[in-house]
Amino acid sequence: MSPAHAPAPALPPLDLTADVVDLTRALVDLPSESGDEARIADAVARALSALDHLTVERLGNSVVARSDLGRAQRAVIAGHLDTVPAAGNLPSRLADGKVHGLGACDMKGGVAVALRLAAAVAAPVRDVTYVFYECEEVEGERNGLHRIAADRPALLADADLAILMEPSDAGVEAGCQGILTADIVVRGERAHTARAWKGVNAAHKAARVLQRLDDHVPERVVVDGLEYREGLSAVSVRAGVAGNVVPDECVVTVNCRFAPGRSAEQAEAYVRGLFPEYEVRVTEVVPGAPPRLEQVAGLVDALGARPRPKLGWTDVARFAALGVPALNYGPGDPSLAHTAGEYVPVEQLRECEKRLTNWLR
Amino acid sequence: MSPAHAPAPALPPLDLTADVVDLTRALVDLPSESGDEARIADAVARALSALDHLTVERLGNSVVARSDLGRAQRAVIAGHLDTVPAAGNLPSRLADGKVHGLGACDMKGGVAVALRLAAAVAAPVRDVTYVFYECEEVEGERNGLHRIAADRPALLADADLAILMEPSDAGVEAGCQGILTADIVVRGERAHTARAWKGVNAAHKAARVLQRLDDHVPERVVVDGLEYREGLSAVSVRAGVAGNVVPDECVVTVNCRFAPGRSAEQAEAYVRGLFPEYEVRVTEVVPGAPPRLEQVAGLVDALGARPRPKLGWTDVARFAALGVPALNYGPGDPSLAHTAGEYVPVEQLRECEKRLTNWLR
Repeated sequence: MSPAHAPAPALPPLDLTADVVDLTRALVDLPSESGDEARIADAVARALSALDHLTVERLGNSVVARSDLGRAQRAVIAGHLDTVPAAGNLPSRLADGKVHGLGACDMKGGVAVALRLAAAVAAPVRDVTYVFYECEEVEGERNGLHRIAADRPALLADADLAILMEPSDAGVEAGCQGILTADIVVRGERAHTARAWKGVNAAHKAARVLQRLDDHVPERVVVDGLEYREGLSAVSVRAGVAGNVVPDECVVTVNCRFAPGRSAEQAEAYVRGLFPEYEVRVTEVVPGAPPRLEQVAGLVDALGARPRPKLGWTDVARFAALGVPALNYGPGDPSLAHTAGEYVPVEQLRECEKRLTNWLR
Repeated sequence: MSPAHAPAPALPPLDLTADVVDLTRALVDLPSESGDEARIADAVARALSALDHLTVERLGNSVVARSDLGRAQRAVIAGHLDTVPAAGNLPSRLADGKVHGLGACDMKGGVAVALRLAAAVAAPVRDVTYVFYECEEVEGERNGLHRIAADRPALLADADLAILMEPSDAGVEAGCQGILTADIVVRGERAHTARAWKGVNAAHKAARVLQRLDDHVPERVVVDGLEYREGLSAVSVRAGVAGNVVPDECVVTVNCRFAPGRSAEQAEAYVRGLFPEYEVRVTEVVPGAPPRLEQVAGLVDALGARPRPKLGWTDVARFAALGVPALNYGPGDPSLAHTAGEYVPVEQLRECEKRLTNWLR
């Protein structure tokens, strides 16, 4: 029997009583590229099922574990199980006070902290819904949290707040900005380049669109005292019919990051208003999440960090869409996410574990 | 035996004594998309080999037939055998005084005229080298005339002038402009679009290049009394890394048409001079052909047409490179080339045949 056809070796069970550093390394050493999370979901579900105070449900390769102690408040603590593809950064390695390896930062360190809480805090002062989900690193339709929100919203919507264990350098990143993507279509008229004056070169005419983008000064919007810095970037320019043809179309794709203060409709009107003389095809618009600091004030105090605005879009917006205020909080430098050299500092793992443990106890 | 495996039906031989209209239709009805010219080359070579006053050579799917009467002057009369792919425009059709069908205009009408001359003028007053060649509609390396010029230059270089049977509405189009293609590279710096200010958007910065192209006023260069109108067109713009990344490179491909007065080096210096602050990668530069009207004055008189400048590049430049003055002269409206509705007017077929016959007799 060839190795390829051998049954997968039995996994050592995840030991949730282990130190958070060992648990992080065990998770890193359990490869789980997006779409291939069955083994890690098995291991997580099995470990959580051994805990008497949690009810565990498996949904695809996502796992939801809920306490049901009748507490006045319920919190979601969520993290994704998948990683981007490996980049020569396996197995895990502990050096210089950091756990190195694929997903250490994004976000197996955060998952390890959450699993430690699940095991160590058997009688939390607030009920907890732990969510470990698949396919965060790929298209939104496959995202495990999206699927739970779509298929089983009640599993999430009864929470009073949510903590997404996104790497945030153990700081609090509140809310998130929205994303709008649109094609701006510049039209011209084809001609043979040997008689270019008979046509209208759409690529030349696109200079106006690109110059307007270059001149554009994005707004800075303050919500709950946090400054969200918007952005409007061309992410693609495409023109060209053939080497001897004056192109009759040039498409500039723009990516707009808009503050949580704006609705999808407002963001769309804003971008259309910048390019009133062009066809603007909006291909994606996803609102962000307001910080709602008042509703998470107790948690923020417990985490001991001054909230910062989250500029990138994260899954906190999915909680916001369900009416659940959410913030990003997790160990690891977010700028290391998706890099071959990603790591998570041991100190931040311990800090996050301690702060959240205290908040739950 | 399936039809696909049946031997090709024997072709009726080309009848070079037939009327030029019938011959044009016979050629149109002999499909010869670029790369698939074996059958038409067979038919042409067989028909020419039957003529005692010509020595016929087959080179790939090109055919060269030379008279050798010791005349003081030698002319090349050349036309390509291939066509662009069919577009529902076969078989040929005669209607409204026009032969319709694939290649009728570009350039089986011209080939028919040349074949008629080869057969009908057995004792021309100037020696003639007839060249019927393959692969004109595809990349230059495959071009039959290019290959003859490269492998057997002596077959062409002993001529005093050349007539390329390009459709020119039975007018004389003298010389041709050169072509330069270059990539103008605009550089920036990548960043996540959620923190776009940390990067430099190369697509935004490309506005300057495109605006400069839009503002550019091409020159009009007079050579031998003919005005060549130059052109500089973006034919492609490419930027884009990913939907959430500020692109660090934008490449604008420009196609420059330059008058025969300029050398390749001058054209290159001209384009580089327009974009001194950018990397300019010249990917192709092919000089044009000077009209050299003095050297073709007798022919021009015989054709009875006032010469016009040829703006597009044609294979006359290959003759110019061999030191042979050449002009474009053939039946058919050049703007119909490569269109599904192409046709050649019967009147122009007869006009071209008559003018060239008189010149050779």
